[in-house]
Amino acid sequence: MSLTGCFVAVHAGAGFHSLRKEEEYKDVCKTACVQAMQLLLEGESTLSAVTAATVSLEDASCTNAGVGSSLTMNGMVECDASIIDGQTSLFGIVGCLQGVKNPIKAAKKLIEKQQSDNLSHGRIPPSVLVGHGARKWCEQSGVETCDPALLITESSKRMHLKYRRKIEGCSSKHEKAHDVKRSRIEDNDINGSIQDTVGAICIDNNGNITASSSSGGIWLKHSGRIGPAATYGAGCWAKNRTKDRSGVAVTTSGSGEDIIRSLLAKTCADHIQTVDNLHQAINEVFHNEFIGDDSEKHGGVLVVKTEDVDSVELLWAHTTDSMCIGYMSSLQKTPKTFISRLPSDSQSGVSLKMEGKYINLTNKK
Amino acid sequence: MSLTGCFVAVHAGAGFHSLRKEEEYKDVCKTACVQAMQLLLEGESTLSAVTAATVSLEDASCTNAGVGSSLTMNGMVECDASIIDGQTSLFGIVGCLQGVKNPIKAAKKLIEKQQSDNLSHGRIPPSVLVGHGARKWCEQSGVETCDPALLITESSKRMHLKYRRKIEGCSSKHEKAHDVKRSRIEDNDINGSIQDTVGAICIDNNGNITASSSSGGIWLKHSGRIGPAATYGAGCWAKNRTKDRSGVAVTTSGSGEDIIRSLLAKTCADHIQTVDNLHQAINEVFHNEFIGDDSEKHGGVLVVKTEDVDSVELLWAHTTDSMCIGYMSSLQKTPKTFISRLPSDSQSGVSLKMEGKYINLTNKK
Repeated sequence: MSLTGCFVAVHAGAGFHSLRKEEEYKDVCKTACVQAMQLLLEGESTLSAVTAATVSLEDASCTNAGVGSSLTMNGMVECDASIIDGQTSLFGIVGCLQGVKNPIKAAKKLIEKQQSDNLSHGRIPPSVLVGHGARKWCEQSGVETCDPALLITESSKRMHLKYRRKIEGCSSKHEKAHDVKRSRIEDNDINGSIQDTVGAICIDNNGNITASSSSGGIWLKHSGRIGPAATYGAGCWAKNRTKDRSGVAVTTSGSGEDIIRSLLAKTCADHIQTVDNLHQAINEVFHNEFIGDDSEKHGGVLVVKTEDVDSVELLWAHTTDSMCIGYMSSLQKTPKTFISRLPSDSQSGVSLKMEGKYINLTNKK
Repeated sequence: MSLTGCFVAVHAGAGFHSLRKEEEYKDVCKTACVQAMQLLLEGESTLSAVTAATVSLEDASCTNAGVGSSLTMNGMVECDASIIDGQTSLFGIVGCLQGVKNPIKAAKKLIEKQQSDNLSHGRIPPSVLVGHGARKWCEQSGVETCDPALLITESSKRMHLKYRRKIEGCSSKHEKAHDVKRSRIEDNDINGSIQDTVGAICIDNNGNITASSSSGGIWLKHSGRIGPAATYGAGCWAKNRTKDRSGVAVTTSGSGEDIIRSLLAKTCADHIQTVDNLHQAINEVFHNEFIGDDSEKHGGVLVVKTEDVDSVELLWAHTTDSMCIGYMSSLQKTPKTFISRLPSDSQSGVSLKMEGKYINLTNKK
């Protein structure tokens, strides 16, 4: 077996990150990378590592996942989360989950039960669980549950109140619709930043890849609304490298309904298999496959491609104002974290910012 | 505008249909076709027609959708349903829905609200709703709700009791797992038949295509489990014909987790666009893309391809024992209905039965 290095990449959401909160977001990504890398270096699975990274992202109250998530119209936190394992293609998805501090742990447990459970009479363990039934399953399966109110922060309560007031003062039929995305930016005195779904990608030293996605969904969503983090193929995707095919992992963020309609994570992964150049592949996806409702489409992707054992190619691309990213190889002492921003003269929802780099996993040239 | 004929195809599930109940299933398909065709001939939309066909299938207590659905482990009906519109690519999905007699009507309403609702502040109407939130939305949106107990039949109660007894008499770790699918067949003295997800495809005389999927899910599922009929790309798919590309619609049925993992409906549709011969395309999907848990994969697809205005190509394929199908063009006086069965010497889950035919929509040669 040819062991190589390990790799972690995370993002704390594509959206709008104020300069004032930049350090806070970068710190969140840093912690997530360190937590995951520690497990990988101890020989833990990519499933465990990607879960640890995502738990870090969920636990940060400034991200839109786990505690501090966007609130539904009726003021609750309902979370979506998913993991896909690139070695086995097993996946675990939870949607519309209330009162579970780390929804990603439920997604992990769904995969573990598919690997281990031998249900009688040929019954098949579930891959996707939602709502009250999902919470009950968590209770029965040892995934920690909590008082749903514990996931609501003071900041999210204030935002909720502000959005509710705006909407209640405005009849949908007779007023010109304002853009929540625009008012979000005006609101940064309250919240400092708005982001969507977070996610992580981990590669172990056998080349196994696992990806995740976790989200509180959109502000003032109807209770029961499912977003891309709970939609197979939309929020995250991963496939190990084979002798004929590059390994690939994708995790997405942005306008949920558009990302679902485009099955954005899987569509990126499929394109990467057919278009050699990674930048070209993702550029084509954003221009031809990512379907927006009108002329605008708001989304971001974090992509890893592995062609050999010595390096990975990392790419981030977004049409949102910004996207907060962190990554770390086992050769790095500390993670690299940064906020990628659209150039000041470009238009959110229209312009595409795309960058990437090769990262060595071994000391070989 | 070149008007052609209309077309409806439906299936009452891939699975096992006893000879004793054959006429009942064929009648269900017949009614579904007639209901949908009547609307199409009156100039109603394919969305309305596909809903009407699916309502017929749901209302039949012998199908696994709507009333008479499989029961969850705790004895409830939780339904999944979806519609995709091939003209607009809009979709509506409900999952884990309790106490709604016709889940497909909720899926239709989700699409209609995306077409008509102008929510204030740029909020986006949901595409996917699940659980209690979905039921509340139905109440608010004028989709009829009912006492959840009204969807449970005497027959489904008896089956539930029988399955529960089997499982409770068997420890999952220490007994050899029996196959529920096999015991289903032994059980046909109780239930007569077992099928999965139902679905419909409608084409109007402008060539617009819409497809649907509706299901009660698997017997003894955990509450909250979501299946392919509530998974975008898995249960149904539709795309209108363009000048460069055939029109296509697919609706699927069978082992839910495998159908989700393969995104079977979309995968069939994508293959049909790249492989000219329809039989070859679907054969390749079943052999290379439809991922089973082990050597067996249980599924069925009903596919329509439109290359020109004068005819459609219809195809059905299944690895299950049987699949009940009906279809009707506006040139037919009555629908054609039949049960497609694997040859007696072939093995369910391994062998593939595939047939199809061209159906004229106009009197032109």
